[in-house]
Amino acid sequence: MFKIYDVIIIGGGPAGITAGIYCSRQKLSSLLITKSFGGQMSRKAVNIENYPGFESISGIDLIKKFENQIKKQSIEIEIDIVSKVKKTNGTFSISTKGKKNFKAKAVIVASGADPRKLEIPGEKKFIGKGVSYCALCDGPMFSNKVVAVIGGGNSAFETAIALSNYTSKIFIMETGKEVRADIENQEKAKKTKKIEVLTNVSLKKITGKKFLDTLVYFDKKNKQEKSLMISGVFIEIGYQPADTFIKDHLVEFNEMDEIKINSRTCETKIPGIFAAGDVTDIKTKQIIVACGEGAKAAFFTSKYIKNILTNNEKFKN
Amino acid sequence: MFKIYDVIIIGGGPAGITAGIYCSRQKLSSLLITKSFGGQMSRKAVNIENYPGFESISGIDLIKKFENQIKKQSIEIEIDIVSKVKKTNGTFSISTKGKKNFKAKAVIVASGADPRKLEIPGEKKFIGKGVSYCALCDGPMFSNKVVAVIGGGNSAFETAIALSNYTSKIFIMETGKEVRADIENQEKAKKTKKIEVLTNVSLKKITGKKFLDTLVYFDKKNKQEKSLMISGVFIEIGYQPADTFIKDHLVEFNEMDEIKINSRTCETKIPGIFAAGDVTDIKTKQIIVACGEGAKAAFFTSKYIKNILTNNEKFKN
Repeated sequence: MFKIYDVIIIGGGPAGITAGIYCSRQKLSSLLITKSFGGQMSRKAVNIENYPGFESISGIDLIKKFENQIKKQSIEIEIDIVSKVKKTNGTFSISTKGKKNFKAKAVIVASGADPRKLEIPGEKKFIGKGVSYCALCDGPMFSNKVVAVIGGGNSAFETAIALSNYTSKIFIMETGKEVRADIENQEKAKKTKKIEVLTNVSLKKITGKKFLDTLVYFDKKNKQEKSLMISGVFIEIGYQPADTFIKDHLVEFNEMDEIKINSRTCETKIPGIFAAGDVTDIKTKQIIVACGEGAKAAFFTSKYIKNILTNNEKFKN
Repeated sequence: MFKIYDVIIIGGGPAGITAGIYCSRQKLSSLLITKSFGGQMSRKAVNIENYPGFESISGIDLIKKFENQIKKQSIEIEIDIVSKVKKTNGTFSISTKGKKNFKAKAVIVASGADPRKLEIPGEKKFIGKGVSYCALCDGPMFSNKVVAVIGGGNSAFETAIALSNYTSKIFIMETGKEVRADIENQEKAKKTKKIEVLTNVSLKKITGKKFLDTLVYFDKKNKQEKSLMISGVFIEIGYQPADTFIKDHLVEFNEMDEIKINSRTCETKIPGIFAAGDVTDIKTKQIIVACGEGAKAAFFTSKYIKNILTNNEKFKN
């Protein structure tokens, strides 16, 4: 006979870890499945300065604290990737790429989001040869080189600012007419004197020999094709919710593939499946918000399992 | 001419501090008004073990970290108590008990909640003479004494557990037939061997001479009036939202006097007034959740000020 957990948490980022802490403190028999700890925190290129409790801390250091904390709880941890969630006879079956199967009365989906791809020629070919989705991991290889950061939001600016510590020049390339980063980040970027912002561009292709050396783009304002001689392209254009394992069926999604939740309770449309953090349609994609959402999801999962959800806590979209 | 701030944040607990960090990083001209820092964290009788990033930390220590962090931001801080919020000509006027007046384009109400009173004879008379709403502050005076903790939730149990370190005996008194604390807390209480739980009681009065010495109650099960010879009564029966300054008008409240918000955006019914944390109708009253809500409120306040709230972000209850 299969062990049936009270709850299986999918994901080891801020939302999943906080949900895990709360579930285990509620004495739910809990399993957390994740491919690794930290989620998007592990890709933070600059120090985290907006998580209350830490004036300034690296993503890596904060992850380590989170990881140590969850490992102290009475929760089982499985390092694996979930491939499928099915509902059968009132319980949920979860299968993994590692060919394991687990069962639970409730599921908290906290699987976060993955970096979005540019989908232009050369992008895939030069991954690891100049194309990167993780400035923190790959940046140091580009010392004194010229690089481009694709995107116009906070991630793009933070990445560029971090890269300015050692690269010689950074182009921030934004397809829209204006960047969307916070003023503070725009000001910081200006202060580096190494960052040039190009807006209104359409990216065409990435070329090179063994390593990439050229980024070809269309300057929409001047209606001209141009190219930049660069050594690295850092792609920071947002995230794709990591929820394909639950995609075919069960829960509801919005047009951005985010799981629709009741924002008071983290319930999805399917009773027993809760979701928290960046995988959901909560707009504020922030570490502290994801943590709060994870705690909420755990709180209402516990109520669901004890069968004490009130009517006005039931999913309403 | 009055300075008009972009935003005034009312409250210096987890929600207000996080909102302050986020507003100032968004370069909003911001003022935070609070009577003190920490909110309910300052009344935590046991260490905080469910705030991700800290395996175990005292409320006082976590407050200090929060306070240091907010003081590093470009936000003005006013130590005072808000007495009134008014809307005039599209801006908000805020007056304080210290007879000051401030104006802002937007307001974030994060004023938390105050301990609820028992409302029985003797309660008021013996405040500071045996009656306490803060075990952390007053507990140590009851070394080797017999005390009662009123309430049956986590706060009551956590308070009793903390008191068991130095008091000789603790009665937990709950008016309902069952306690509502987490199993973990109930188990911890049992392990102390000093805690006795009395349910189904109706509290009648507190009596004494200079200091309280007797708690009179009605045992509903045995239909009998009884009394306990005790030295202290710790009242842990929940909180009253601290929102009277906005009570007469403006925002909407639920039956528990909590401010109704759009749980995705922290908007209240009045455009420009946002609310976050324990003062709102968000059910999960937790430090980490309040922080997340504060970040959300700041994010959407910033959008409101830049006039870029989309239609589906407008208040819907």
